[in-house]
Amino acid sequence: MAITLYELAGANSDLRFSPYCWRVRLALAHKDLPTETVAWHFTDTDALRFTGQGKVPVIVDGDTVVHDSFAIATYLETHYDDHPSLFPSANMAHARLINAWVDSTIHPLLARLILSDIVGVLRPQDQVYFRETREKFFGRKLEEVTANRDETVHEFRRALQPVRIALKAESWLGGDQPDYADYILAGSLMWARCVSRFEVLEEADVVSEWFARVRGLFGGMAEDAPRP
Amino acid sequence: MAITLYELAGANSDLRFSPYCWRVRLALAHKDLPTETVAWHFTDTDALRFTGQGKVPVIVDGDTVVHDSFAIATYLETHYDDHPSLFPSANMAHARLINAWVDSTIHPLLARLILSDIVGVLRPQDQVYFRETREKFFGRKLEEVTANRDETVHEFRRALQPVRIALKAESWLGGDQPDYADYILAGSLMWARCVSRFEVLEEADVVSEWFARVRGLFGGMAEDAPRP
Repeated sequence: MAITLYELAGANSDLRFSPYCWRVRLALAHKDLPTETVAWHFTDTDALRFTGQGKVPVIVDGDTVVHDSFAIATYLETHYDDHPSLFPSANMAHARLINAWVDSTIHPLLARLILSDIVGVLRPQDQVYFRETREKFFGRKLEEVTANRDETVHEFRRALQPVRIALKAESWLGGDQPDYADYILAGSLMWARCVSRFEVLEEADVVSEWFARVRGLFGGMAEDAPRP
Repeated sequence: MAITLYELAGANSDLRFSPYCWRVRLALAHKDLPTETVAWHFTDTDALRFTGQGKVPVIVDGDTVVHDSFAIATYLETHYDDHPSLFPSANMAHARLINAWVDSTIHPLLARLILSDIVGVLRPQDQVYFRETREKFFGRKLEEVTANRDETVHEFRRALQPVRIALKAESWLGGDQPDYADYILAGSLMWARCVSRFEVLEEADVVSEWFARVRGLFGGMAEDAPRP
């Protein structure tokens, strides 16, 4: 029996454009599951009443109703485990994307919080080298890069929002146990911790709690590392 | 025999602060591999000459020299495959983080490119609903949200930099085959494609080439989907 997918539609009911519905449509195709789609429009309130909530995508698979694209993906993965996997074990590719995200998004923001503090922990000859190369790269004095850090820190914390969302579902970025994804981001936060006393995270943040857990791993290796 | 790890150090040589070195230190601990660390400072140029390049982290494992934190992580994973995995198969957790990154970073930028075009594909009654709810959410008219899209598009393309980096290493975000990570981002780009003729990607971008490959999957399902 085909799975029914309720999809957001335009005035032309064949026009389907929701990113979340597209994720599910691609996932159903990937798992080679027969699918019938139903056009749903923003004001078709009654049509979703049976789902107990008001948003698409929704799938109906026999007696099972599932909403939320990620919940649907995980349902399909576990329920149809003899079909092609949506999450094959080549987990390294995903970690590579997370690595690239941290390097290209989180690091530039962290630099604007701690760059000028790095000089303070270096040997004199390294201070000269560091200041010269980094000031050339940033096109201004190190102290100017971090001058507005009391404001920049809010932007930095906002940029960690994906991590907060992921940690709502699981204790570690690796899932129920730490893996390299945890070490990628923890490495960045250790960078800040080991050169600066500037508080890049708020204490009440779930990211702070997670970072404390990572520091506690391996006998407190990171927790006990020297700080300035 | 212990693995030797060259780590960036401060004037206090016990102070180790490089994010990339921390990633490797945590990875070595995770894999329970005996490690000796060597302090390296920015101007210790000669000390790394044997590695054929000039940056830490570097590990020396018997006759093997590996640099670059991700290359080291993958070396450790494959060479010490009987030790705890850095990339266990619970790949879903990583996909969840990628999902959260796309939702919280890519979608707000995409909205500033295509939001006002969505109205044009809706039924009249849905147009009223959409305009009312979205204008309340954004605190301004839809047309104002997208007014500067010729500039915003550059910010959007920059935000995809992690994807570009990941696609340098592999053909798909899932690695050597597409998986749900590919569908997460492709879903977002289908959203834009199915409501707007505004070009969110440059043709010469590797992200464009990858997106065309995703659209070609499953008999061209996404390629052939209706557009306005």
